[in-house]
Amino acid sequence: MSDHPDAPVEAFEPPYYVAVFTTVRTGEQGGYPETAARMEELVKQVPGYLGMDHAQTPGGLGITVGYFRDAEALAQWRSNAEHRGAQQRGRAQWYESYTLHVAKVERSTGFTRP
Amino acid sequence: MSDHPDAPVEAFEPPYYVAVFTTVRTGEQGGYPETAARMEELVKQVPGYLGMDHAQTPGGLGITVGYFRDAEALAQWRSNAEHRGAQQRGRAQWYESYTLHVAKVERSTGFTRP
Repeated sequence: MSDHPDAPVEAFEPPYYVAVFTTVRTGEQGGYPETAARMEELVKQVPGYLGMDHAQTPGGLGITVGYFRDAEALAQWRSNAEHRGAQQRGRAQWYESYTLHVAKVERSTGFTRP
Repeated sequence: MSDHPDAPVEAFEPPYYVAVFTTVRTGEQGGYPETAARMEELVKQVPGYLGMDHAQTPGGLGITVGYFRDAEALAQWRSNAEHRGAQQRGRAQWYESYTLHVAKVERSTGFTRP
């Protein structure tokens, strides 16, 4: 996942969708980095995938935001078999708790220092 | 802002609103912690404010997600004079770039380790 310090994903023209995934992880992170990298590779293949932002407070909360053009793109990603397997493993091993919010963007704005 | 390691904000019953604010900061962070604390104090006074999640990758991306019951609650927070002042200072000093996505939640789910 990109926690690139250069710039966040841009403000697209609404409507589009965000999937906000907030997590607290367990102490058992074996296999997590490889799976996260594989998921990023997979989601990029979904038609209508627009991008992803990720931030992780050390020892604290992680937030991943995925951006999708429409509900169909999200549904395709949601039903991906390898993704579902990763979700199962997340509940079994990697996550202490998480929340997922799927929402339709009505307004967006961006700023870049001149 | 709460980057509490205990648990993310819960999955409320849709519809509700999320404001996803992704940032890359400058090297000039004087006054930022005090203003962030003051903003958290202020937003809690907005009727319909539900909570906030925050994650910050050291030297990288920051993501703050605010949760609101309805568009009216968000509009009230958006028009708060002290908040608008903080936004101006953010563009002048604290942020290299940012993006704001305001979205209506259609589906949510949560998980807590048994």
